[in-house]
Amino acid sequence: MPAALEFLPQADLLLVGDRSAIAPLAPADAALQIIDQGANASVDQGIRALLRGAQSTAQGACLKLLRDGEGDVLISAADTGALLTLSRHCLGSLPGIDRPALTKQLNGKHGAFWMADLGANVRCTPAMLVQFAQMGVVASRVFSRVVRPRVALLNIGTEASKGLARLHRAAAALEVLPDSEYVGFVEGSALFDNQADVVVSEGFVGNVALKAIEGTAGMARHLMQETMAGLAPWQRLLMFGLRGPFARLGAQLDSGRYNGAPLLGLPQTVIKSHGAARQDAFANALQRGIDAVDAALPETLAHGLSAARADTQQE
Amino acid sequence: MPAALEFLPQADLLLVGDRSAIAPLAPADAALQIIDQGANASVDQGIRALLRGAQSTAQGACLKLLRDGEGDVLISAADTGALLTLSRHCLGSLPGIDRPALTKQLNGKHGAFWMADLGANVRCTPAMLVQFAQMGVVASRVFSRVVRPRVALLNIGTEASKGLARLHRAAAALEVLPDSEYVGFVEGSALFDNQADVVVSEGFVGNVALKAIEGTAGMARHLMQETMAGLAPWQRLLMFGLRGPFARLGAQLDSGRYNGAPLLGLPQTVIKSHGAARQDAFANALQRGIDAVDAALPETLAHGLSAARADTQQE
Repeated sequence: MPAALEFLPQADLLLVGDRSAIAPLAPADAALQIIDQGANASVDQGIRALLRGAQSTAQGACLKLLRDGEGDVLISAADTGALLTLSRHCLGSLPGIDRPALTKQLNGKHGAFWMADLGANVRCTPAMLVQFAQMGVVASRVFSRVVRPRVALLNIGTEASKGLARLHRAAAALEVLPDSEYVGFVEGSALFDNQADVVVSEGFVGNVALKAIEGTAGMARHLMQETMAGLAPWQRLLMFGLRGPFARLGAQLDSGRYNGAPLLGLPQTVIKSHGAARQDAFANALQRGIDAVDAALPETLAHGLSAARADTQQE
Repeated sequence: MPAALEFLPQADLLLVGDRSAIAPLAPADAALQIIDQGANASVDQGIRALLRGAQSTAQGACLKLLRDGEGDVLISAADTGALLTLSRHCLGSLPGIDRPALTKQLNGKHGAFWMADLGANVRCTPAMLVQFAQMGVVASRVFSRVVRPRVALLNIGTEASKGLARLHRAAAALEVLPDSEYVGFVEGSALFDNQADVVVSEGFVGNVALKAIEGTAGMARHLMQETMAGLAPWQRLLMFGLRGPFARLGAQLDSGRYNGAPLLGLPQTVIKSHGAARQDAFANALQRGIDAVDAALPETLAHGLSAARADTQQE
């Protein structure tokens, strides 16, 4: 938390949760406020119990602050399913969107691309996948300045017959999505080749892919460290002159740097941090939240979705 | 192909397929034989048509050679689903195994682990997942010399309530699997931390994970090459003294090096190569096939599965 306070002096932080757990970690003179409010929400107890007890959970209290205009962005590292359920319950969703999606911009070899859903909705209908694509298209147009984003579905092969029936139905609907070009199925092995600007998947699959990406990036860093550790003394001397470029390479492979994914489709900004995020990674999620507020993420998305609907009706 | 002939002088290669496509690529004096036999099989035409036309496809012809004892191992880069369907149809499967699984040994930070299924069975029942675990346990015991392999299910969270109902049912069954220890759910981000010796998933999810791993390893190589390209001239001089270790690092991140996954659960050895494998990667799949024959993979697996069954019945 102290790291976040250093990097983010322009933000007022409200820490919501169990005060006895938070207070020892927060510096006494810091520009933050602690709101004592129970534990994190979880879906373990079932959806009904979760919604019934919403007010007594930290996330429920945060969402009430957002709804009442006392907060601009919620950043949470707790259970994704609980966060999604409570967010929809407390805030509703944008017109035309049934289920918000966990969304992220990733860096490929030739630029950025967007992925959704990354784990908010375990199983998805074709209609939900199409809505994720719609949100991704707006995000890509507005934030990545791609005029006509290319949309792909994450699958286990590129042939039209591969994979699951609901992907095939979603593919048919994506063919006619406005302001975008459907480019077919994409495999995980080609994700970073920028064949698409928006990659759509159901939450279970997107989450597996994202975490496999993070795990592999961590393995690559591990192999790099092993390589360094195995150098002869004279090679370490050479390495000293190369420490700048290789430190940058290590940072590019640090998934903590990309921590923080917005739940797109809500009327307010909610950012999911990794549960296992380190201090610097969590600070990145905070930064992502502030960026989203600066960019008026939900309003911009709502505007883009509404414009796309108007276009479709005119056609 | 010439690369494979150099590396694998101890193998007799039978090339089965369209002679007009193969012949121009094969050296005239090479120790190989071309069997002219139609195109690759595909599941696009439907399962029935695939099985009806099995004899006229390259894979069908190969499997007949295997069944008749005229070949020891089939290596194919064609459609995984078609390969699985034809293999089961022509060869049957081992006692106690309903569906063969695409299996692979991957290198984690602290040693190897096995993953199954990597894409042979798109959707799986809990019973199939348990069979994949059984095969993985035998493979880990025999080939990785792990006495009591730890088994995990690939999921989107480690909490018991996360993910899909069929994973929860499989988890209950894995708790009592003999000769192994069920350690719960594992996420893709922890795959390389060696929390498990055998990681089980349904084919769709395993394939997405494997390909995301390969894509990310490729991205890491790309970033490394970009780092090298961005070095100042004097730094390139330093790099010259480090080219050995960094060439090894690059090779560790080359997924082509790990190309070739056996379809475990068949009475003969069938190896799936990536469809997009380069020449050296395909040569690695050939080498993997020869290793599998040397290790008597199907017989060893059958023996291990039968011993595990005997143990269970005694208990």
